[in-house]
Amino acid sequence: MAGVVVQNIERADAGIVAALGACGVATVHEAQGRIGLLASYMRPIYAGARIGASAVTISVPPGDNYMVHAAIEQCREGDVLVIAPTSPCEDGYFGDLLATSAQARGVRGLIIDAGIRDVRDLTEMGFPVWAKRVFAQGTIKASLGSVNVDVVCAGAFIRPGDVIVADDDGVCVVRREDAADVLAKAQAREANEEAKRQRLASGELGLDMYGFRQKLTDMGLKWV
Amino acid sequence: MAGVVVQNIERADAGIVAALGACGVATVHEAQGRIGLLASYMRPIYAGARIGASAVTISVPPGDNYMVHAAIEQCREGDVLVIAPTSPCEDGYFGDLLATSAQARGVRGLIIDAGIRDVRDLTEMGFPVWAKRVFAQGTIKASLGSVNVDVVCAGAFIRPGDVIVADDDGVCVVRREDAADVLAKAQAREANEEAKRQRLASGELGLDMYGFRQKLTDMGLKWV
Amino acid sequence: MAGVVVQNIERADAGIVAALGACGVATVHEAQGRIGLLASYMRPIYAGARIGASAVTISVPPGDNYMVHAAIEQCREGDVLVIAPTSPCEDGYFGDLLATSAQARGVRGLIIDAGIRDVRDLTEMGFPVWAKRVFAQGTIKASLGSVNVDVVCAGAFIRPGDVIVADDDGVCVVRREDAADVLAKAQAREANEEAKRQRLASGELGLDMYGFRQKLTDMGLKWV
Amino acid sequence: MAGVVVQNIERADAGIVAALGACGVATVHEAQGRIGLLASYMRPIYAGARIGASAVTISVPPGDNYMVHAAIEQCREGDVLVIAPTSPCEDGYFGDLLATSAQARGVRGLIIDAGIRDVRDLTEMGFPVWAKRVFAQGTIKASLGSVNVDVVCAGAFIRPGDVIVADDDGVCVVRREDAADVLAKAQAREANEEAKRQRLASGELGLDMYGFRQKLTDMGLKWV
Amino acid sequence: MAGVVVQNIERADAGIVAALGACGVATVHEAQGRIGLLASYMRPIYAGARIGASAVTISVPPGDNYMVHAAIEQCREGDVLVIAPTSPCEDGYFGDLLATSAQARGVRGLIIDAGIRDVRDLTEMGFPVWAKRVFAQGTIKASLGSVNVDVVCAGAFIRPGDVIVADDDGVCVVRREDAADVLAKAQAREANEEAKRQRLASGELGLDMYGFRQKLTDMGLKWV
Amino acid sequence: MAGVVVQNIERADAGIVAALGACGVATVHEAQGRIGLLASYMRPIYAGARIGASAVTISVPPGDNYMVHAAIEQCREGDVLVIAPTSPCEDGYFGDLLATSAQARGVRGLIIDAGIRDVRDLTEMGFPVWAKRVFAQGTIKASLGSVNVDVVCAGAFIRPGDVIVADDDGVCVVRREDAADVLAKAQAREANEEAKRQRLASGELGLDMYGFRQKLTDMGLKWV
Repeated sequence: MAGVVVQNIERADAGIVAALGACGVATVHEAQGRIGLLASYMRPIYAGARIGASAVTISVPPGDNYMVHAAIEQCREGDVLVIAPTSPCEDGYFGDLLATSAQARGVRGLIIDAGIRDVRDLTEMGFPVWAKRVFAQGTIKASLGSVNVDVVCAGAFIRPGDVIVADDDGVCVVRREDAADVLAKAQAREANEEAKRQRLASGELGLDMYGFRQKLTDMGLKWV
Repeated sequence: MAGVVVQNIERADAGIVAALGACGVATVHEAQGRIGLLASYMRPIYAGARIGASAVTISVPPGDNYMVHAAIEQCREGDVLVIAPTSPCEDGYFGDLLATSAQARGVRGLIIDAGIRDVRDLTEMGFPVWAKRVFAQGTIKASLGSVNVDVVCAGAFIRPGDVIVADDDGVCVVRREDAADVLAKAQAREANEEAKRQRLASGELGLDMYGFRQKLTDMGLKWV
Repeated sequence: MAGVVVQNIERADAGIVAALGACGVATVHEAQGRIGLLASYMRPIYAGARIGASAVTISVPPGDNYMVHAAIEQCREGDVLVIAPTSPCEDGYFGDLLATSAQARGVRGLIIDAGIRDVRDLTEMGFPVWAKRVFAQGTIKASLGSVNVDVVCAGAFIRPGDVIVADDDGVCVVRREDAADVLAKAQAREANEEAKRQRLASGELGLDMYGFRQKLTDMGLKWV
Repeated sequence: MAGVVVQNIERADAGIVAALGACGVATVHEAQGRIGLLASYMRPIYAGARIGASAVTISVPPGDNYMVHAAIEQCREGDVLVIAPTSPCEDGYFGDLLATSAQARGVRGLIIDAGIRDVRDLTEMGFPVWAKRVFAQGTIKASLGSVNVDVVCAGAFIRPGDVIVADDDGVCVVRREDAADVLAKAQAREANEEAKRQRLASGELGLDMYGFRQKLTDMGLKWV
Repeated sequence: MAGVVVQNIERADAGIVAALGACGVATVHEAQGRIGLLASYMRPIYAGARIGASAVTISVPPGDNYMVHAAIEQCREGDVLVIAPTSPCEDGYFGDLLATSAQARGVRGLIIDAGIRDVRDLTEMGFPVWAKRVFAQGTIKASLGSVNVDVVCAGAFIRPGDVIVADDDGVCVVRREDAADVLAKAQAREANEEAKRQRLASGELGLDMYGFRQKLTDMGLKWV
Repeated sequence: MAGVVVQNIERADAGIVAALGACGVATVHEAQGRIGLLASYMRPIYAGARIGASAVTISVPPGDNYMVHAAIEQCREGDVLVIAPTSPCEDGYFGDLLATSAQARGVRGLIIDAGIRDVRDLTEMGFPVWAKRVFAQGTIKASLGSVNVDVVCAGAFIRPGDVIVADDDGVCVVRREDAADVLAKAQAREANEEAKRQRLASGELGLDMYGFRQKLTDMGLKWV
């Protein structure tokens, strides 16, 4: 099954992908029905990054980053690398040289269900990474994997070209064919939240604003 | 047992609560006999926050944040929300809208043995959170829990109105009736530490300053 | 076996130790054949620190930091404390007073396979720590351990006087007798990397630069 | 706070305690409103044990089992030891000698949020233990703790004399004053379950037997 | 996305499914190219069970087992229930009553990325379960999920009707359309292994039998 | 550093090694001063095995079991294989074929800080394994490691020829040169324990038998 590089993948519209990134993970996740999150152990190496990008997926053997080199050729402006090992691994598959190469092709960042190293350099370069671990352990180049095949990364099923949204809250995947629809719902949600935010900031209670007081009373909640 | 909102809780004196916060977690924990710490997985979402506040406790079902809305009404200036799910959960119960509402009522922050989201917004708002996870996973509003009942949060037993001290070292609870006594001991400890700090900074050894050299020798320690 | 303080240990040349620190963990780890890393759970308490230093090792009982006081006397300019408990523990063995004392003797930082506290103070002091946990739990002074004996710390075997390199990527140990040789290899590696970095930044692919395209094809990789 | 042995504690009626044990953890937990479970990492050292017993609680320092000896004197027929360390620890506090002593006093078993050793001997003796870890690491006898004080053990708040029910599903605590009431509900639940079990075994669907089909349809479930 | 029960799913041939089960997890995993394993935390509740069965998948909200009842109606002889919660959860979704109902319909066992209870009863019934946790925590019936939709369970992507092989080594999924091909390879592998086993049992070394000695020497291995 | 097979290693006397095995892990660990335990996550694949054996150590790359084949040639009657990967890994390096080969050479069992598979077969063969995980994930044969070099395995430093004691309580290493001395202490301890066991079984309290009552009173323990 390993040993394939799929060269032409479909991506969602670049403007939509960027706009999903601007909405952020929590909003996009809610907008598409509370699905698509990667596991909570996927943490950014520095605070403040927020991206929307198209997934170039890489299935790699444990401790072997040969395929990452093959994957970079498949990237274009607006992509994000998504690396999933075939068995649990925390080795450091990726560092500043690979990031330099990826950045030269317009790659927005990296999602990796394994380790990452050179985090100081990556931070200075402004190349964001969401990873399971920071670990300097080097990898070898001995076995094949595949590029642009379906993967499970940190518990989420991701296909090549799916949209990745990542920020300080974590990482979310949106099916590329749902991107426009999810964006519309996410933006509607954002508009709606702003009005609520102002009412709550003024001291109005959610209990009243959302009509929860009556519902909770009906459910049997007692104020004592 | 669920389904109750206790409206009037006793709190410790506001000045004492604030002063405990200024002492910090390590000092307060030591001052009260090395008790009261929450588990070490409770980490702040940003560095530098330090609070002393009175606990408004919330017992919530897994993945259901209905009770958080009911709890905010019970908060007043100087409180902190303490959320404990009834079974292990890392869903994101709380985000920027709830924080806006809590902040409008003078809530100092949140302690949650579960997940948190919108961490970028919360950081910008200066609303500190100590949480088990950062995770965008949304919650539902379907079941009752309780507000201002005794809870076990991250391994610590916390009653409504108990004092919460939290900073970069983690979270500590002080029984509200012990607050004045613990504060006195914490401040004494701080005064005492300053003198020691200066002696140690000048190069004096703890071995000598504390008289440990003789005791260790008596216990059989060999210098070879 | 416990109960010994070894007073005179061999260290590597101070200039070499410092130069190894400047190379950083990932480079040093690669230069010595991908060995020597401590476990990935050893994280710095603040970003940006990078040290090279000689290990003063401390074997401690769980929850007992008596030996840390004895160890500080054995430190000199350019050392780093390496604390390993004899059974798994996350208590906070070390805080700002011990750091003040260590800093007064020229200690560069702390590596501890347990907990650390007063992290805000340590950050302000510029005293870097790589630890398993941040946890305020206090320790006692009741039992003996040993100073400057061989230890296993976070999965790595460390001898007194071995070189510790630590930065945002984690912690690596270099045998003191290998320090000069590893440094030569690390610096050669760095020189070599800069040329690669520029070619990659200009858009050249690693596939071509490293000659991987042909090798992968020979191994059977298919571009489809 | 440490340093106390409370000698006379209240216990629930012995017959009720035994009957709760016979009901088992899942039933008792449900009967009292889905509360009282200890964390799922508390596993039995051998399969098939089921106990109902009154808690003699022990608060111990990490790696120090001095208080366990003091506690055994406080035990009588039908008790269970409940050991909670004051900070996370997996050392082996308890082995076959202590079990021999406990068994001689009629102790039914041990609940420990730490380590256990001599599991082969304990299995042969028929002395059941629910523990966080199996670990042979020895402990010392240097510091005081307390016996028969309130503890948090594996996330549950337990008071001396509370009822412990433990079996292959884990461990549950019942407040001693609720024991009779919970038993009545548990036995009613058991009677009720037997009838359901027979109907289900005959092939009747829960969807029909519980009337879920209509409710799910009303909630919008679609069969496609 | 939630709220659907897919009633007619394709399954692989019953004889092939059973034969895959007889081959066991390690062999089937190897035969299909070392893919398809669920995470290693999925452990059987008792030793010795070995199944091959067709997946009836269930996507459930955290702490809510309503959909499990709907799923049982969709099961037939030779199926296995595969339960995946939409966020991490260890509650006990399934116990002896559900197992009785499932067994009445010919269900071979349960794969659940969450908790299980009544393990003693399930063991006596001979109803095998592979689960993340044993935990008695009860669940509610308040929200919809879906039956027979694609799920990610313990890190593996599973579609309704895919073949599940499970034994003491864990759990493996085989695509239903690959089942015949994988079975052929697995059986060939088994036949091949038996001859090797006899040679190895007689004392012949793998180094010689597989021709590794020369290859390792060529790679530079030194015998010293 | 990798790429070496050390062929002639020193071992402790076979009778002493076997006698240490008969004493068991807890006793041996105590006898040698509470050192030498491997991490508590190292669990036996079946209950009841107890071995004393000489370590043939294997340093392996992650996911690559080539060296295990080379190691078996180095084994003789009374040895145990000790496998340590160079970075964290839970792949299944070892199954029934390798066990057949090892058993043919008189190998007593396997200690592996990684995964194991074919556990049903291994159990039937009576070939005991202490492992970090049970996981069927296959490994490759592409890179060199080393045989009979010093390793850190599950947190313990182990040299070729050191004595391994393993049973239901876990795994302990004894330096080969200390074996006779540790055995004498272990056997003395066993003799001593039998007398204590009988006194405790007759109802005498440890408080009295060990003279703890007075010491605890002197330390300030209060009976209330």
